[in-house]
Formats: sequence, structure tokens, C-alpha cells
Amino acid sequence: MKVTPWEVEGNIDYDRLIKEFGVSPISEKIRSRLKDTHPLLRRGIYFSHRDFDKWLNNHDNKKNVSVITGRGPSEKMHLGHLVPFLVAKSLQDNFNCNVYIPISDDEKFYVKENLSFEDAIEYSRDNILDLIALGFKPKKTFIFEDFIYTKVYSYAGRIAKRITYSTAKAAFGLKNENNVGWSFYPAMQAAHILFPQFNEGKHISVVPVGIDQDPFIRLTRDIAMHKDFGFEKPAALHAKFIPSLYGDPKMSSSKEGSIFLSDSKKEVENKIKKYAFSGGGATINEHREKGGNPDIDVSYQYLKMFFEPDDNKLKKIYDDYKSGKLLTSEIKDILIEKINKFLEEHRKNKEKAKDKMKDFILKD
Amino acid sequence: MKVTPWEVEGNIDYDRLIKEFGVSPISEKIRSRLKDTHPLLRRGIYFSHRDFDKWLNNHDNKKNVSVITGRGPSEKMHLGHLVPFLVAKSLQDNFNCNVYIPISDDEKFYVKENLSFEDAIEYSRDNILDLIALGFKPKKTFIFEDFIYTKVYSYAGRIAKRITYSTAKAAFGLKNENNVGWSFYPAMQAAHILFPQFNEGKHISVVPVGIDQDPFIRLTRDIAMHKDFGFEKPAALHAKFIPSLYGDPKMSSSKEGSIFLSDSKKEVENKIKKYAFSGGGATINEHREKGGNPDIDVSYQYLKMFFEPDDNKLKKIYDDYKSGKLLTSEIKDILIEKINKFLEEHRKNKEKAKDKMKDFILKD
Repeated sequence: MKVTPWEVEGNIDYDRLIKEFGVSPISEKIRSRLKDTHPLLRRGIYFSHRDFDKWLNNHDNKKNVSVITGRGPSEKMHLGHLVPFLVAKSLQDNFNCNVYIPISDDEKFYVKENLSFEDAIEYSRDNILDLIALGFKPKKTFIFEDFIYTKVYSYAGRIAKRITYSTAKAAFGLKNENNVGWSFYPAMQAAHILFPQFNEGKHISVVPVGIDQDPFIRLTRDIAMHKDFGFEKPAALHAKFIPSLYGDPKMSSSKEGSIFLSDSKKEVENKIKKYAFSGGGATINEHREKGGNPDIDVSYQYLKMFFEPDDNKLKKIYDDYKSGKLLTSEIKDILIEKINKFLEEHRKNKEKAKDKMKDFILKD
Repeated sequence: MKVTPWEVEGNIDYDRLIKEFGVSPISEKIRSRLKDTHPLLRRGIYFSHRDFDKWLNNHDNKKNVSVITGRGPSEKMHLGHLVPFLVAKSLQDNFNCNVYIPISDDEKFYVKENLSFEDAIEYSRDNILDLIALGFKPKKTFIFEDFIYTKVYSYAGRIAKRITYSTAKAAFGLKNENNVGWSFYPAMQAAHILFPQFNEGKHISVVPVGIDQDPFIRLTRDIAMHKDFGFEKPAALHAKFIPSLYGDPKMSSSKEGSIFLSDSKKEVENKIKKYAFSGGGATINEHREKGGNPDIDVSYQYLKMFFEPDDNKLKKIYDDYKSGKLLTSEIKDILIEKINKFLEEHRKNKEKAKDKMKDFILKD
């Protein structure tokens, strides 16, 4: 098993990660406070945290709390990219808190040698529409791009002073041949995580994030305590990896292994039928006889994580698949229909988002 | 002799520097085109250049040209700090061109461990008033602070992508224990130098600068040519070092060795009388007999560089000092009177500058 911000390999042992990273499991007590939230939160895909109990307590005690989760814009977003945003929206819906969404057009620009400045900006705009389409609340949701809302540079500068190149090099795997934008980016990322406090003053802000990204949270928690700032340590909610259609531990941006928000109905159908890793029997007869394994079946996992919010319906699918009553082709059909319904709705919302943009984008 | 952006040591051989740096001496032909400019330009304190002949030609051919010179703000400005700005103003007066003045509050903040963000901003504001007080033209002069007019971050980001950490490390002497703001600053500095072209499109902009800073110009000239930008290479005008009162090759910010713009009449008088290095004889008799050496006399140098614009009057001072007719105490009195007159006027102008600030500061 290898889990760093750049590499995820092998069979992931999440209990071991909890120990190694020094984070806390999401307890039953916490989970009981998340009953009405998105499946990703209440079904254990988010499995560990830092100080999220404090965040919940502060909310209950009428103290200000917020959510911050950023996006390094890419050409097209896929389902896996939505994970932290679905959680952020759910926290906003359930706890009525502000959500901050920094768009790190600079990060992608620095890291991708051939990405032009103009394309970086264009991808940002496209991704922002995808995010607004999820239904965040205007006036409580603040989106900004590093290269447009450059005010963030002054916050990043204050943090940059407290991160040595050595520290950045170790935490971000910098090499001497990387460009200096990349060297600076650790400060920008920490500025994103602390942005809610720069903006609203000291309070606990939670970052929903893949567990592999936790080293950045830890770095930022240290910085938050520096006397220059006197901020609260940001809290974190850690997600397990979302499998690709092939069942790989982490969904990548490979064209076939992921469902893109721009995929047509036909593409979705083809991808699921052709690639979605099945936990079913080798033949129909074998499946009817021995049953399938929903725990490794990607279609079932996607229904559990994203597309079947009703616990009773999900349980029936689980039981029927396990018993062999529900075939692989049938569970795939259920998923295809659900995804296509979601994507159709999403594209309508994305179109509408164009007019709403001004309500979400931070301005000087 | 050692001349790097961080260290200046030994007896400076400017002819050797011209060869080693690969720059061009300011020829008689060029000097003949600078007849009405500031003494610093027409009396050879600016001694070498890069492409300044092209700049002049472009101006004569009605092409757009501009001047850019920045300031790393400090607590208080002294006379030596004014050098590039007096030249910029003179070029503006003579060639009616735009002048850009970036204020690198970020640089000083990154480099000075104990400088607070608030103080960095405050020093900037104070220094900006000193600069406006020099009489730059509103509408043709653009001042901006990196931490305030953060739009410059997006330009710096585009440049950062084309500077590796190795390059920055070599050019700026970065160490691993330096902070990442410092690592990024080379991109910000190049963004300053190319700012006129980002702002007005491709044209030749000249940078009046101490010869020790030429390595940064060279780096930026390389970047300007990158296909991402397609800019003109910026031109440069190189100044010799302005001696401290003690006669050291470079005026530092030591309290006694420099004349600060905030010094009182009494302080100026004391400093010049006590510290200004004299080229005069050891005794009055010896001076009368053998004469003085104006070429090493700091008071004479200051009159030549800053305070006696009239060539005939300057020549008379030179001759009288050399012949022994003019005593050290007398040349010091001339200088004291000139400096105090200048400073009195300057402080009045600085007070007035407070109301003019909005006409000079760039806004988003």
C-alpha cells in the first residue's frame, strides 16, 4: 500500500491509514449527527476526520462554521471530481453554512507544461458552471479563481513567509527543475484553506478531502497556529478513494474508466456495460446459484455512493444482487438509468448556471 | 572587485564591468541626445546600457516607449534611493513617456523575517508619497503595490511557469531555508519589468537600474522572448554606485552614512560636516597650497550628481576646489544649503502628494 498526494497504489487499508496519518475515525456518535446528509457522508465513504466533532459542536453552539473545498480545473469534470462538492453542498443544506470554492487555475497552469494561460482560464469557467449546477446557495457560496480574484495573492504571501522551500519541497515533492510558480503554490493552497478565516475572521472551517491529501491539511493546521495569524486549525473530512469503472482504487481522468459530466447517454451506457467491474458470477447460471459480491461490484458502489439515496431501496439491491436474484446486466441497467437522469438534469442546471455566475464569483 | 546583486566590494572598474556583463557603454552619440536631462544621465553616472539606443530611436520614430523602475519599500528613503526615479522623471519630462513604478511590498516582506504585513504596507505608502513628491505626471505615471494591486500575480504566474527553481536559485542566491515567497519573487520582479508590455502591448520599456542588478534584467530579457509572450526585450540604463557620505562605493541604509529624506536641517548639517568624505588637504594651509581632489570628494560628487544642475557653476566649484581656492568647509556649506533647500521643498511636495495619490495608484 502506498498513499501519498501523488501516488495511490495497492490494497488500501483504511484502518492502517487512520493510525499512520494520526487522524480520527468518524465515530457512530458523529455519524448519528449526519443522518440527513449525502450518502457519501452517512454511508462511510467519508471515514475519518480531524476536529470535525469540534466543527459540529461549534455549529450546535451557534458559532460560525464554514466549508472550504477547492478545484484544480481540468478540461472536463468526471463523477469522482464531484465528491467533495456533493459533501460541501450537503453540509451547507444541513448546517446552513458558508461554502468557499477556490479554483486553482494557477496550480494546473504551473504543473501542466503545455496548458496555455487562456485554456487554464477557460477550463476554470467550465468547471465553475459544473459546480454551480450542483445547487449551492447563492450569497452563502463564494467561488474565486487565483488568476482572476488575485486578492488571494496577498493572503498567500503572508503564508509564504512561513513556509520554507525545504518544507514545500518535502510536502509537495518539488524538484529543482520545477518552475517557481509550483514552488509558491503550497502557500496558495494553504491560503485557500485559511481563506474563510481571512475573510470572516477566526472560526472552524472544514475541508472535505481525499485521505491522500491530508499532508496538506496538516501543513496548513500548523500554519494556522502561527502567531502571525492566530487562526483556528481547519477541520478535515477524509474520503476513501472512489473506484474507477475498472475497480481501480482511484478514479482517474482516463476517458474510458470514468463517467464525465459531459458524456452522452450512449457513452454512459457503453462505458457501464463494457467497463464497469462486476462482482457477479461468471455465467448467469453461476450468478443465480452462488450470487454476486456487491462489495466489489462497481455498479453497486456507485449506487451506494451517488445514485440511490433511499436506504431501503439500496438494501434491496444489495440483497438481491448478493442472492443472485439481480443479475449484473440488471444492476448495470439501474445504474445507467440513474446516471443518465442525473446527467440530463445536470446539463440543464449547467446551462442555467451561466446566468447565475455573478451571484457566486467573488469580486474585489 | 566583486559586483553581484547582493554584494559590492573593492574598487569598482566600470570598464571591466561593461565587458564582463556584456553591456554597451553610453556613447557620445547617445549622450548628445540626453543634453537636457538630469545630471545623473548627462554627467555619466549612468554609464552603460542595453538597447537604450533602440529606445531612443523608437521614440524618435513615434513608437511607444516607456520607463519602468520599482521600489522595494523601506522604512525611510534616502538620497541614493531616488536615483532611478530622478532619471525616470527626467525621461518622462524629456520624452513624454509613461512611467511605471511597481512597489514590491512582497519582496521586503518575504526577505525581512521580522517585518509585519501591516508595516510592509505602511512603508509602501510612505515611500509612494516620496515618489509622487518628485513631480511625476499624473495620467502618465502608474504606481502599484504587489499586495494591493494583486492583478500583477496573474502576470507573474505566467512568467513563473518559465523560470525553474534552479534558475531562480542561481540568479537570486536562494537557499533551501528561504521561504517560498522569496522563491516566487523572481517571477514577480520579471512581471514588474514586463508590466508595461502586459499593460500596453509590445513596446520597448527602459529600466534605469544599478549595474549590480543587471543579472535580473538579463533574465527578464530572455523571458520576454519566450513564445508565450513575444514581447520586446526591455532596455536598461545602468548607474554607477552612489557613494555613501563616508565615500564607500554604495550608499547603504546606515543612519549616519546617508542623507534621509526625513532628515532635519540640523541632521543634514551635522552629517555633512562630520562624515562627508573630503578630498581636501589635511590643513587649510595645505589645501590652499596643493588644492583638493574633487573626484574623490563626496560633497563635490553629490553636487555633481544631484544638486548643481548648472554646468558652469559646477565647473567653477570643481576648478576652485581643485586650485585650493574653495575650502572643504565651504564646499560642504554649499552642499548643506542645497540639500536642505531640496528637502524642505520635498517635504512640502510629499504633504501635497497625499491628496494626489489616487491619480497615480493603479486600480483593478
